[in-house]
Amino acid sequence: MKVGGKDYRTVWMSGSSVNFIEQNKLPFSFEIYEARTHADTCMAIKTMIVRGAGAIGASAGYGMAQAFLESDENMKYVDEAKRCLEATRPTAQNLFYAANRVYNSAAGSKKPARTALEEAQRIADEDAENCMRIGENGNMLIEDGFRIETHCNAGWLAFVDFGSALSPVYVAHRSGKNVFVYADETRPRSQGARLTAWELRNEGVPHAIIPDNAGAHCMSRGMVDMMIVGADRIAANGDTANKIGTYERAICAARFGVPFYVAAPTSTFDLDCETGDAIPIEERSEDEVLYQTGPDEEGVMRKVLVCSPGSGALNPAFDVTPAELITGIITEKGIIKPSEEAVRSLFS
Amino acid sequence: MKVGGKDYRTVWMSGSSVNFIEQNKLPFSFEIYEARTHADTCMAIKTMIVRGAGAIGASAGYGMAQAFLESDENMKYVDEAKRCLEATRPTAQNLFYAANRVYNSAAGSKKPARTALEEAQRIADEDAENCMRIGENGNMLIEDGFRIETHCNAGWLAFVDFGSALSPVYVAHRSGKNVFVYADETRPRSQGARLTAWELRNEGVPHAIIPDNAGAHCMSRGMVDMMIVGADRIAANGDTANKIGTYERAICAARFGVPFYVAAPTSTFDLDCETGDAIPIEERSEDEVLYQTGPDEEGVMRKVLVCSPGSGALNPAFDVTPAELITGIITEKGIIKPSEEAVRSLFS
Repeated sequence: MKVGGKDYRTVWMSGSSVNFIEQNKLPFSFEIYEARTHADTCMAIKTMIVRGAGAIGASAGYGMAQAFLESDENMKYVDEAKRCLEATRPTAQNLFYAANRVYNSAAGSKKPARTALEEAQRIADEDAENCMRIGENGNMLIEDGFRIETHCNAGWLAFVDFGSALSPVYVAHRSGKNVFVYADETRPRSQGARLTAWELRNEGVPHAIIPDNAGAHCMSRGMVDMMIVGADRIAANGDTANKIGTYERAICAARFGVPFYVAAPTSTFDLDCETGDAIPIEERSEDEVLYQTGPDEEGVMRKVLVCSPGSGALNPAFDVTPAELITGIITEKGIIKPSEEAVRSLFS
Repeated sequence: MKVGGKDYRTVWMSGSSVNFIEQNKLPFSFEIYEARTHADTCMAIKTMIVRGAGAIGASAGYGMAQAFLESDENMKYVDEAKRCLEATRPTAQNLFYAANRVYNSAAGSKKPARTALEEAQRIADEDAENCMRIGENGNMLIEDGFRIETHCNAGWLAFVDFGSALSPVYVAHRSGKNVFVYADETRPRSQGARLTAWELRNEGVPHAIIPDNAGAHCMSRGMVDMMIVGADRIAANGDTANKIGTYERAICAARFGVPFYVAAPTSTFDLDCETGDAIPIEERSEDEVLYQTGPDEEGVMRKVLVCSPGSGALNPAFDVTPAELITGIITEKGIIKPSEEAVRSLFS
């Protein structure tokens, strides 16, 4: 997608470096972070320089390729690098998918470093293509004039390009349909208010940020025609782990008859998880709740305390929405009802 | 309640001045704002130096008394002051209740200023007493070991003293029961993270701040035994206007079988509103969503932008929870099921 008229992906490789749009700096400044080693890439994933299902996956693939490049064919080094990558974000299925795919293709190869690089690039390219197809498939659900609520950021910044939940919005907008997006703020990291709003503004899609608390109110007043969210991991029965607050929106959408869609590439499915109960939920630092960072009136970035001093906070990063609350899952292979049969049919 | 060992109310009169704990400065500094005229009091309500159902009511009563003091028995002046007070916060029932009560008692009196002062003081004292009774009634619902979620701040800072939703917690805690409170952050103004957490810490009640998004997740994991919230206005059928996000919590509580209580004095009921549809919802400035204020690492208060520059936001301040989702309403007269019959019986 374009930033200031120039085409960008969220993550790409040049030489032995992995380059990232520095998402912790967005939307206030646009910077590129260069990870020269797989250890830098681990750090970039862990500190959320890169975040979002597909982008984490592509990064992990590139990070594995870096490890093969660095290893001089020492598989102990590669194995240790894989463990380091896999320890960065426990909930993200695409991370394990990509790390395993690069590892398995290269480990048995005659030219492991080259094979790893090619496989990592393939994963990134497939991610972008799949997201484009998700957009085309999801667009068929969007009518002219639709007002669409989304949670967190499952736009192009969360993938290599195009995005999952926002991809149908972009396709609809570019095809001339009038669409309006309500971007949930998505506390505590505010990816909706910061990243989704930034993406939508860059693309010229009309939108408003709403506090997470306003979801039920807006739905109850008939202001929302459909909801589309992303996914961090989807179990074999369709239960979906996504950013904390997704479950709450799905419960409200069911109450108000608002269609609730999950958009994700098939790489986000984890058939080893029979249900959502098996998906681990990452607990992040309470500091993400207690502090907020942003530019002050003079444009200087400041970290300020936004809670009462001395009180602690809980910060579960994800929740699991049961399949029964999901109207459909939009994938690159089509739209399915969330059931074990339909999920398994995607892979047969 | 005590602050640093000294007893305080949120609002009190001395001479012709109304004194407020400056709630916009909490929890980072404790200051008293002195409103010398009814116009100052209007400003204090409008800018949320004072906020919360009962505290707004007492303030409006005192403000009316100031107007009678200033009026030299010119009723045009008093009428204009009443309009000014009533225009400050459209959703708060206690405001209209108190302004009318002082006005009606004093307007027909031989010594209007003195009568107004006495009536305003009576309203404030009744508010404190009623909140204490709400605490005693609500405490009967709380078992030892209960983990109680609350939204926004309906503690003593929202009333003259003791509070509504938090009053049962204080009574339970003081009586030796183990209670733990989950304080919803309550974006955009974060009254839960700032005021409720501050109150609980002052009283030594164990608690944690949770992002608004974490409600359903915590309930789904069996972490919440009951939920108690306050109310800004309750219709004759039990529909309840309260801080934005309350509706969402009530929907989730119903799904997970978590008892959902509203705590409010009878002065918060508005029998002229047959249902919640008749309750006006205040829309506040988008700046409350776009910016956050707090101390930086050196303790200097900073206002920082927390959303993507150039994007707008919606900021509905309240929502209306339908009676069917409310387990019971805890009042100073007892606990009722939210039905028109039960509500009307409170006033018969």
